[in-house]
Amino acid sequence: MAEQDYDRGPESERDEDDYPLNKQAVARIIEAVDTGDRDLLLSEMEPLHAADIADLLEQINSGDRRALIALYGREFDGDILSELDESIREEVIGLLTPEVLADAVRDLDSDDVVDLVEDLEGGQQATILSALEDSDRIAVQQSLTYPEYSAGRLMQREVVMAPEHWCVGDAIDYMRHVEELPEQFYHMILVDPRLHPVGNVTLGRIMGARRETALKDLVEDTFHTIRVTRDEGDVAYMFNQYHLISAPVVDEDDRLVGVITIDDAMAVLDEEHEEDIMRLAGVGEGGLNDSVIETSKQRVPWLAVNLLTAILASLVIAQFEATITQFVALAVLMPIVASMGGNAATQSLTVAVRALATKDLTGSNVWRVLWREIMVGMINGLIFAATMAIVGIVWFGGPELGYVIAAAMVINLVVAGLAGSAIPVVMDRMGIDPALGSGTFVTTVTDVVGFFAFLGLAAVFLV
Amino acid sequence: MAEQDYDRGPESERDEDDYPLNKQAVARIIEAVDTGDRDLLLSEMEPLHAADIADLLEQINSGDRRALIALYGREFDGDILSELDESIREEVIGLLTPEVLADAVRDLDSDDVVDLVEDLEGGQQATILSALEDSDRIAVQQSLTYPEYSAGRLMQREVVMAPEHWCVGDAIDYMRHVEELPEQFYHMILVDPRLHPVGNVTLGRIMGARRETALKDLVEDTFHTIRVTRDEGDVAYMFNQYHLISAPVVDEDDRLVGVITIDDAMAVLDEEHEEDIMRLAGVGEGGLNDSVIETSKQRVPWLAVNLLTAILASLVIAQFEATITQFVALAVLMPIVASMGGNAATQSLTVAVRALATKDLTGSNVWRVLWREIMVGMINGLIFAATMAIVGIVWFGGPELGYVIAAAMVINLVVAGLAGSAIPVVMDRMGIDPALGSGTFVTTVTDVVGFFAFLGLAAVFLV
Repeated sequence: MAEQDYDRGPESERDEDDYPLNKQAVARIIEAVDTGDRDLLLSEMEPLHAADIADLLEQINSGDRRALIALYGREFDGDILSELDESIREEVIGLLTPEVLADAVRDLDSDDVVDLVEDLEGGQQATILSALEDSDRIAVQQSLTYPEYSAGRLMQREVVMAPEHWCVGDAIDYMRHVEELPEQFYHMILVDPRLHPVGNVTLGRIMGARRETALKDLVEDTFHTIRVTRDEGDVAYMFNQYHLISAPVVDEDDRLVGVITIDDAMAVLDEEHEEDIMRLAGVGEGGLNDSVIETSKQRVPWLAVNLLTAILASLVIAQFEATITQFVALAVLMPIVASMGGNAATQSLTVAVRALATKDLTGSNVWRVLWREIMVGMINGLIFAATMAIVGIVWFGGPELGYVIAAAMVINLVVAGLAGSAIPVVMDRMGIDPALGSGTFVTTVTDVVGFFAFLGLAAVFLV
Repeated sequence: MAEQDYDRGPESERDEDDYPLNKQAVARIIEAVDTGDRDLLLSEMEPLHAADIADLLEQINSGDRRALIALYGREFDGDILSELDESIREEVIGLLTPEVLADAVRDLDSDDVVDLVEDLEGGQQATILSALEDSDRIAVQQSLTYPEYSAGRLMQREVVMAPEHWCVGDAIDYMRHVEELPEQFYHMILVDPRLHPVGNVTLGRIMGARRETALKDLVEDTFHTIRVTRDEGDVAYMFNQYHLISAPVVDEDDRLVGVITIDDAMAVLDEEHEEDIMRLAGVGEGGLNDSVIETSKQRVPWLAVNLLTAILASLVIAQFEATITQFVALAVLMPIVASMGGNAATQSLTVAVRALATKDLTGSNVWRVLWREIMVGMINGLIFAATMAIVGIVWFGGPELGYVIAAAMVINLVVAGLAGSAIPVVMDRMGIDPALGSGTFVTTVTDVVGFFAFLGLAAVFLV
C-alpha cells in the first residue's frame, strides 16, 4: 500500500517537494543507478506509484533510463508502461528483456493492453500479444478492430449485469456467489432479454435497499448508453456533462458489449485539453521527451504557415513604401496597431474555441456571440484609440498622425473581434478542429487589416 | 429516467443534433415560451438533463430567460442552479420565486449547496441558507469556513467507514442495516480507533469476497488521504495521476472529515484547464454570458499591458528611423522577423506551461528542456533564415538584405526558445501562475529582440 500524504496545505501548493517524485528523490535514484546499488534503488522506488515511476523515466535522460531499467530488472511493472508518455514508450519497451516484458504485460487489464499496443509498431505489438494468455490476446485483438479513439478501444469488457426483473436479493446472491467479479465496478447494469442495457443501479443503492425491492426501482436518474464506435472525446464530454460514473457500451444492435468508467473518461478529457492547448499554439503532437529533431519537425509546419502569412502582411506594407519614406513615424507605429489587433483577436478566438469544445457556443447563440465580440472590439478599440491618439500627438507632435492611428485601432479591434470568433465557428462547421491553426489565420487577418488601415489612412490623410 | 442515445458513430461526431439540446429543440422551447404554452414547454424540457437545461439558459437571451423561468415555475430543479455558469447564476436565482428557490436548494447535496452559495453576494446567500433544513445549513456553513478552492469546499461529509479490524461479513451486515447510506459511494474507508483513515475497500471487492475475509486484506493498492485545506487543483491532479475513484479528506489531526469523489475532481480538472487556456490568452475570467461591458473590462487589462510592450518595441524601431528612411525595405520586412519570433516563442511557452501544470517539467529536467528549446530555435532559425535570405534576395535584389534578415531570424528564434521556456519556469518558481500573461512578456521579448537584431544588423552592414 503506497500511502502518501499530500497535506501541507495550500500555502505550499506550488512546492514540488510535496510530491513523492521531488528533485531530491530523483537525485538519490540517479545516484543509486550510477553506483549500481540495486537495494538503494529498490528502496527509493518503493514508495512511488507506477505513474510516478513513468514520470521519473520521462524526466531523466536516455542513458540514465537505460541503466535504471537494467538495474530495476524484474521489478518493472506493467502499469508503468501504461502510464508512460507515448514518446518514450517504444524506447522503454525495447530496453526490457523479453521475460520482464512478458511478466509486465500479463499483469495488465485488457483495456490497458489495448492502450499500450495500439501505437506500437508491428514487431513490438506482436511481441506483447504473444506474451498474453490466449483469452486476453483474443480480447485485445477484438478491441483493436474498433476505430482508433473510439469507445470500443476505451471500454473494458468485464461487465456486471442483471436481468431487469431481478430484485435486490437476487443481485446480492449473484454477486456473492459468482466465480469472479471485475476488480473495479460501480454499477450493476440492468439488461432486457436481448441484452439491451436499460438502466444502472449503484452498488451503494443495492446495499442500502431491502432484499425484495426491484432493481428497476433503484436505477439512476441519468442513464446513457454509448455506441462502441463513438469518438472518445464525445465520451469524455458526456461523462463530464452528466456526471456519469460508468456507462454501458453497446454494439450496432444496441447489445451490451462493455463498460466505460469515469477514470478512463477523465484521462481522455485531460488528453483532449492537451490537444486543444497545443493546437492553439501550433505545436502539433509534441511532448517534453521528443528529441530536438522531432520537436523541430513538429513545429516547422505552423512556422512555415506563419511565414507565408507574415509575407502577406509585408506585401501590404510594401504597397505603402513611398508613404513610409515620407513619414518614417509610420514604420515606428505600425507594429502597435498590428500587435493590438493580434492580441484582441487571440482573446476572442480562445473564448470561441473553448466555448465550441464545451458546446456552449451553438447554432442558438452564435449570432449573439459574434455581435458581442464586435461590440467589445468597438469599445476596446475606442479606449485604445484615444490612448494612441495622445501618444501619437505627444510623440510625433501633430494631431493628424494621432487621428490616423486612432481610426486604424478601432477598425482593427472590431475586425479582431469578428475574425477571432467567426473563423473558429466556420472551421467547426466545416468539420475542422477550430483549435487547429486558427490563431495563425486570425492574426493574419489582423496584421493585414492593421497595416492596411493604418498605412492606407495615412496615405490618404497625411500625404 | 432521461435516457439519451449518443450513438450515431464518429462520422457524425461534430453534428450538434446528436445532443438533446440541438438548435431545433432550442427553437421549439423558445416558441413555447413566446406563446406561453406551458404543456409544450414541459414536454420539450422533459428529456433534458439539468446540465442541458443550464446550457439552454446560458444560450438564450435574458428576456427569454426571464420568460422561460416564469413559465417553467415549480419544475425548476436545484441541480440546474448547480450546473449554471456563475456569470448568470445570480441573475437566475433572482428570477426564482422564494418558494421555487427554497424547493430547489432543499433537494441538493450539501457539497452542491456550498458550490452554489460560495460565489453569491450576502443577500442571496442568506436567502438560500435560510431555506435549508437546520442540519444541512450547519453543514454548509461549516464547509464555508474552509478556504475557497480547498478540498474542504469540494468534499461531501457523508462517508461510509468501518473499523480496520472488521471482516467482510461485518461490513455487509452494517451496510444492510444502517439507517441511511449516501446516494453515491464507491469505497468503505477503513479507520483506526482515532478515526485516521488507513485504507479504502471497493464495494465490488466486498461483494466478491468471503464473509470471514478481513477488510484489511482487500484494501486498494493506491491510497491517498487529502488534507482539508489542500488546493482543489492539486486534488484534481492527484485523482488524474493516480486514477483515484474516491479519497478520504482529513483535518489537521489526520481525522476523517469527508470524502471527495472523482466526478467532482473531473469538474475541477476541467475548470483548471479553462483557467489555463483563458489566462494564456489574457482573457481573465470571462464567459460567453458576460455582457459587452463586463467582457470589455475583463480584456482591457491585458490589452493595456500589450500596448505598453508594443510601444516598447516601437521605441526600438524609432532608434533606427534614419536607417529605415534610407532602406524602406527594412520597414517592409521587419514584421516578418518579429512575427516568426512571436510564433516560435508561443510554441515553446505553451509546451512549458502545459508541462508545468502536469508536473512533467520539474527541477530534475528543466535544464535539459531549456537546452532543447534553444537547439530547436537554432535549427528552425536556420531553416527559416535560409528561406528568408532567398526571399530577401529575390524581392529586393541584393544579397546583403538577405544575410541581415537571415541572421536576425536565427537570433530571434533562439531567443524565442529560451524566453518561451524560461519565463514560465521563472514565474512558476516565483509562485505566479505561469499561464498568466506570460504570452505578452514572451512576445515582447521577441518583438524587441527581433526589431533590434534586424534593424541593428542592417544599420551596421547595409549603411
